[in-house]
Amino acid sequence: MTKNHLEIIEEHESCVRSYVRSFPTVFTQARGYKMWNEDGKEYIDFFSGAGALNYGHNEPNMKKKLVEYILDDGITHSLDKATEAKSEFLHKFHEVILQPRNLDYKVMFPGPTGTNTVESALKLARKVTGRTEVISFTNGFHGMTIGALSVTGNSMKRKGAGIPLNHSVTMPYDQFVNESDEMDTLAYLERFLDDNGSGVSIPAAIILETVQGEGGLNAARFEWLNKLDAICKKWGILLIIDDVQAGVGRTGTFFSFEPANIKPDIVCLSKSIGGYGLPLALTLINPELDKWKPGEHNGTFRGNNHAFITATEALSYWEDPKFEKSIQDKAVKITDFLTNMVEKYPEMKGFVKGRGFMQGISSDIDGFSEKVCENAFNHGLIMETAGGHDQVFKLFPAINIAEEGLEKGFELIERSIKDTIKQMKLEKETVTN
Amino acid sequence: MTKNHLEIIEEHESCVRSYVRSFPTVFTQARGYKMWNEDGKEYIDFFSGAGALNYGHNEPNMKKKLVEYILDDGITHSLDKATEAKSEFLHKFHEVILQPRNLDYKVMFPGPTGTNTVESALKLARKVTGRTEVISFTNGFHGMTIGALSVTGNSMKRKGAGIPLNHSVTMPYDQFVNESDEMDTLAYLERFLDDNGSGVSIPAAIILETVQGEGGLNAARFEWLNKLDAICKKWGILLIIDDVQAGVGRTGTFFSFEPANIKPDIVCLSKSIGGYGLPLALTLINPELDKWKPGEHNGTFRGNNHAFITATEALSYWEDPKFEKSIQDKAVKITDFLTNMVEKYPEMKGFVKGRGFMQGISSDIDGFSEKVCENAFNHGLIMETAGGHDQVFKLFPAINIAEEGLEKGFELIERSIKDTIKQMKLEKETVTN
Amino acid sequence: MTKNHLEIIEEHESCVRSYVRSFPTVFTQARGYKMWNEDGKEYIDFFSGAGALNYGHNEPNMKKKLVEYILDDGITHSLDKATEAKSEFLHKFHEVILQPRNLDYKVMFPGPTGTNTVESALKLARKVTGRTEVISFTNGFHGMTIGALSVTGNSMKRKGAGIPLNHSVTMPYDQFVNESDEMDTLAYLERFLDDNGSGVSIPAAIILETVQGEGGLNAARFEWLNKLDAICKKWGILLIIDDVQAGVGRTGTFFSFEPANIKPDIVCLSKSIGGYGLPLALTLINPELDKWKPGEHNGTFRGNNHAFITATEALSYWEDPKFEKSIQDKAVKITDFLTNMVEKYPEMKGFVKGRGFMQGISSDIDGFSEKVCENAFNHGLIMETAGGHDQVFKLFPAINIAEEGLEKGFELIERSIKDTIKQMKLEKETVTN
Amino acid sequence: MTKNHLEIIEEHESCVRSYVRSFPTVFTQARGYKMWNEDGKEYIDFFSGAGALNYGHNEPNMKKKLVEYILDDGITHSLDKATEAKSEFLHKFHEVILQPRNLDYKVMFPGPTGTNTVESALKLARKVTGRTEVISFTNGFHGMTIGALSVTGNSMKRKGAGIPLNHSVTMPYDQFVNESDEMDTLAYLERFLDDNGSGVSIPAAIILETVQGEGGLNAARFEWLNKLDAICKKWGILLIIDDVQAGVGRTGTFFSFEPANIKPDIVCLSKSIGGYGLPLALTLINPELDKWKPGEHNGTFRGNNHAFITATEALSYWEDPKFEKSIQDKAVKITDFLTNMVEKYPEMKGFVKGRGFMQGISSDIDGFSEKVCENAFNHGLIMETAGGHDQVFKLFPAINIAEEGLEKGFELIERSIKDTIKQMKLEKETVTN
Repeated sequence: MTKNHLEIIEEHESCVRSYVRSFPTVFTQARGYKMWNEDGKEYIDFFSGAGALNYGHNEPNMKKKLVEYILDDGITHSLDKATEAKSEFLHKFHEVILQPRNLDYKVMFPGPTGTNTVESALKLARKVTGRTEVISFTNGFHGMTIGALSVTGNSMKRKGAGIPLNHSVTMPYDQFVNESDEMDTLAYLERFLDDNGSGVSIPAAIILETVQGEGGLNAARFEWLNKLDAICKKWGILLIIDDVQAGVGRTGTFFSFEPANIKPDIVCLSKSIGGYGLPLALTLINPELDKWKPGEHNGTFRGNNHAFITATEALSYWEDPKFEKSIQDKAVKITDFLTNMVEKYPEMKGFVKGRGFMQGISSDIDGFSEKVCENAFNHGLIMETAGGHDQVFKLFPAINIAEEGLEKGFELIERSIKDTIKQMKLEKETVTN
Repeated sequence: MTKNHLEIIEEHESCVRSYVRSFPTVFTQARGYKMWNEDGKEYIDFFSGAGALNYGHNEPNMKKKLVEYILDDGITHSLDKATEAKSEFLHKFHEVILQPRNLDYKVMFPGPTGTNTVESALKLARKVTGRTEVISFTNGFHGMTIGALSVTGNSMKRKGAGIPLNHSVTMPYDQFVNESDEMDTLAYLERFLDDNGSGVSIPAAIILETVQGEGGLNAARFEWLNKLDAICKKWGILLIIDDVQAGVGRTGTFFSFEPANIKPDIVCLSKSIGGYGLPLALTLINPELDKWKPGEHNGTFRGNNHAFITATEALSYWEDPKFEKSIQDKAVKITDFLTNMVEKYPEMKGFVKGRGFMQGISSDIDGFSEKVCENAFNHGLIMETAGGHDQVFKLFPAINIAEEGLEKGFELIERSIKDTIKQMKLEKETVTN
Repeated sequence: MTKNHLEIIEEHESCVRSYVRSFPTVFTQARGYKMWNEDGKEYIDFFSGAGALNYGHNEPNMKKKLVEYILDDGITHSLDKATEAKSEFLHKFHEVILQPRNLDYKVMFPGPTGTNTVESALKLARKVTGRTEVISFTNGFHGMTIGALSVTGNSMKRKGAGIPLNHSVTMPYDQFVNESDEMDTLAYLERFLDDNGSGVSIPAAIILETVQGEGGLNAARFEWLNKLDAICKKWGILLIIDDVQAGVGRTGTFFSFEPANIKPDIVCLSKSIGGYGLPLALTLINPELDKWKPGEHNGTFRGNNHAFITATEALSYWEDPKFEKSIQDKAVKITDFLTNMVEKYPEMKGFVKGRGFMQGISSDIDGFSEKVCENAFNHGLIMETAGGHDQVFKLFPAINIAEEGLEKGFELIERSIKDTIKQMKLEKETVTN
Repeated sequence: MTKNHLEIIEEHESCVRSYVRSFPTVFTQARGYKMWNEDGKEYIDFFSGAGALNYGHNEPNMKKKLVEYILDDGITHSLDKATEAKSEFLHKFHEVILQPRNLDYKVMFPGPTGTNTVESALKLARKVTGRTEVISFTNGFHGMTIGALSVTGNSMKRKGAGIPLNHSVTMPYDQFVNESDEMDTLAYLERFLDDNGSGVSIPAAIILETVQGEGGLNAARFEWLNKLDAICKKWGILLIIDDVQAGVGRTGTFFSFEPANIKPDIVCLSKSIGGYGLPLALTLINPELDKWKPGEHNGTFRGNNHAFITATEALSYWEDPKFEKSIQDKAVKITDFLTNMVEKYPEMKGFVKGRGFMQGISSDIDGFSEKVCENAFNHGLIMETAGGHDQVFKLFPAINIAEEGLEKGFELIERSIKDTIKQMKLEKETVTN
């Protein structure tokens, strides 16, 4: 059975499987920004586990700590009993992340996945306010369990619920109605809150991503976030930032909302918070809202100590302020590269989207971005699409990637764009659109 | 910071934390059925991570395989891309578990927690049948996210939702109305299905645990399960067995439903399926029902390769039929011990509950079982309560525990019972009640 | 167009029409218990507008008052402005009905239909208690709007909603599980309330009919009602009696619940409260619960003054205690007649159901009762079926019907039973079943 | 008891009563546009039963027919059995209203109130499309039962439900976001339908009033209605026009949507359809959508024959095309009068709202319109406010009102405005705003 792993998977795994369809090869090893398949073929990873591998694969310091811990028979599974590993993580998270940012959140371990932290945030917001509705935004993505799915925009995913999804109201995200114009979607939101005949009641919370990863790399403007924050304060609505994908450095700062100068009531973290790709999630709670009864929300894997070990080690990156700077500098390179691509290849009718290490190109040509990713895979680059029509190809390299890796990735992307233009027989238009 | 871990936790962790309150010590190491705290004090673990550590802590074979894999830079996080580790797990799970039991389930990886597999099962059942309602049972426990919580009985947990929980109907579990009598709760259920004026429509699915772990170690009789299965078939209702806690050997067979000779349409597995206490969950699906669209349900940590490695190794236990036999033999010892306790200490007004390695004593004396667990902790035994009023103390040793460990545990439990009787000043009644 | 009215109706009226299918003739006139069709054929009415014509058709005293009022240009439509007609109704209702029965309800006019009073009752119960769930019973019928439909049992009607019906829990009505045995459905209900893991929360209210008219003439025993009342008090649950069909004398007393000696928190009245078959509904509210804000529930036709005029006149019947006595005496005759039928014609496998002037025979033979009604119509008697499978034929004469009319109806029913037995070729069984 | 009717009402009627608070007098008689109280004081009625008395009070032709019918012992109550009165109404409604307008609706009698026709429309739309969501608009008002309330905007009314209101999405009505600007709320709606990540699924139906009566006399522009109709067609969404208040001539044509040249799939009628203020409602259904099962929606008072008699007579008005013309001519007078008032009394910061015989003035001064209505009442004019903050005073005279009555009403309104300005000490601003 050393061969034919793909057949085994096809035979035994449910047809719900998806990425194996886009990347039909069997991966065996990985280090940093590189992955290898069973035949030893090397791939550059511009996907990073959809944001769960911000520090790359099998980062050596974390790896060392993890192996030592295992060899030592450190506690592996602890529910929410006290362990040294957990306490050390809490302490370091406070010292390195919260305190320097003037944040004093309580940390909840809600179960180790993104959808779990979102569910816990929604439950708490409803419990604390006594209200039932939550406002979410178009093209938001928050998870697959019924509570989180109710605030997720994607219609295919929503239909998967098999029941009507309730207790949520969807509002237009920044620039939703018309990307190029300035019509302020928040004026709209405010009218709904303001008019007692609008049919929209004051919600328990507003939940959003500052950059919508799955939804198509839509990045809210800082002033929009600021204004939203003011609206929440004005109406006594809790502000929940789902930083599962955009957090932990993905946008260039630890939390994605830092440059907007806001302080959400609840923050959802998962994906890269474990550092090594191990399941972990946190719900950060304004201490005044920490009104849970003991065990009112729980979960078997809320204490994943292997992830505490790697998460703690990962925080070391943030002790040095140069780290954030380095991400931001490389992010500029990504922007430059993408802007260049858009200008150089007008045939793809593309425009740059996103922010920091979550940028990409949205193409108005149906199927273009999917084809680029397919070509990239053949050239040895792993990259996925985003958006309701897969209209965006999305660069998600590790935030600690070496320059060399970045450049190599760019090169393969340009080749993939060129291939795609050729394959789709696209021509430069002479008229402007 | 090497000391005062408990203070750190109290300061920084949300007040939702719970087990740290019952077991207020800091654990650092564990092996097999033993745990040690930071002062080197040894504990016998009759809790086993609420069923997530059926093979004990840090089982040496799994540990070896896991360390090798990590050192080798094996893929850690893969979403649902193909990896060797995943394929090997799928293959062995099929060979060792499914095929010998004449089962041909497709395997879905729904995200690594129990609530995730339950949510995926409910979604699929609703999608496939086009119906919205699901029948669950009194005192069932299925998870903390809104979909799973809707089919969970516990009122404190339900209130935590902050919204009315809908699309579910709760029916009486076996012997719910009166434990000592034979009133058949399924006659009741059938009347509701049969009468078109009952207000209960034919549901998409019926979901249940064969032994309710959190609900108080209520074990459904095999004939009851059989009859329920027949009802499902008669009405075209999907049968979902949530084997998250009762599965993976906990009741003496790999699946808890084997002795009832039923073949559920969907099976939920998590907790001990990873073997080592690492987050993993499976949803097993009758192939005819595997109607998912690619990616219709997904999750960042659905491909946890560390857990695949340990899960694969854990399956080796099941290659030898003696393993099941050994669990069952020890389970008899547990029954004998508990029966003896009930008879020897009538003051506690106890009766034995549960099945296999999920047995315990329910005491009619308010607070008794909680006190037993508290005393046990002080004597160096970790054990928790179950049931809506914590009326049950629950023995959950590792299923591969050495005889010696089992005996030692029994000894500490008896001591704790005796202490409790003394502390609560209970006396033997001379009259029968 | 003086002829062919049925064609006009078929052409222009929606296919939702129903009674015109069972009684395919065009009615033109009616008086007391008699109706005439366009050809002058006379019918005896044992249907009474499904309980809206308890005083028969076009009762002469009410008719006189109504015509005078109209000729006088009395206010017809007033919303809830004050009118003399309304004030006089309120006064007389208090004097003649409430005060002598030691009841001090506040009267709400919720819109002139049964479903409206039920909706208002449910809204008030939820508002006052702050709880969302309502318990209703199997085979209960409360109306067709979404709130009332949610507490209605009939599956065909429920499916008509096109959405899942929520916020309600259906419990077994008296003798639901097994008509001949004594299994107490309230023991069952109490277990659900009592066990905090049952999945059923303490509801805002319990709503029921004391005799289920549409549901098959199921009459709850008085001791069952009494015990239910005690349960409501114990748990702080509001008791809502829907007396829309069973009230206004239909069971032999003004309110159907009088003989059970209970005092519901809220009572729903409609159908015969207007006296003359004119739309009117009342919601009677325990004064302590009358927490509505002005206009929080409203409706265009809540002040139907024509109905106030006839309703006031109708109350005169109740000034003389002999009236109730006369209903009860005739009800005995109905019971005797039906009992006799069941014994005389064992072929129909019938048993008597119901109470007072809402009795009938339920036949275990599929289609029997429908056929009896069909034959009765051909013989000049109007009578309908009830129950989820139309298994009951239902005698609903006017409560002031002359002896002669009753006897004539009995005669036609016996003829219809005999015809049906012959048509269905039923034979007396010699063996008992 | 001939005196003190108001005390009786206060003592016995629920505190939910509302109009009696604004108009604290006891009405006894009415004719045409006049009402009299118990002291013989005359009032001019510019309220018309909130649109239920479009033909004025006790219209003599209808009165005559009704009295004859009653004296003749015509059928009063018939559920949906066939009666001559019903057939004649159906025939004439087809001949006089539908056919000349090229409409071929099937007529459903859903129970005699506005909320009933709305509930039936929503149920049918969901049933026919298999979808659950319905889009409604800000400040829409559709009724008080749970289904209709779910699509009603008013927050006070919604809170009265005591449960979260689901399966509905509220969208901005024409000019909702900013009354003076041209931001097209339908562009917004379309974006939501168009983007598969918007969180808004394609609904079963869109329901709206063409002029929102309760919501503040907001009149949708015809081109907006037209565009909305096109959107419905494009997406396969059913268009439901709730013409309960705006229909039956209130805007100058029989149906309010006629000038927009649209043909809704379903139309809701009630209020003035009965002609005389008697409870009646119709649901008009595109024949292709008439997929009801017999009795799937029903109601005790769906066949109110007194209302059929007056409704049939009322249709005679529409046989003469001059009638519509006369309404429209008088509507121009109303517009002129109101425009004049706004200009003449800038102190009230008013602007004219509405269309046809449902026009009024919205004042930006808090409490102004309420005060105008109060003064008007004292001067002998009955008129109510509309809008979420009662910011509009609303002229709702009978559509057949004599010129004289109209003029008299205008005079009293102007006096009331002047009084109010004086009482509130409002001054003309010299600066423009």
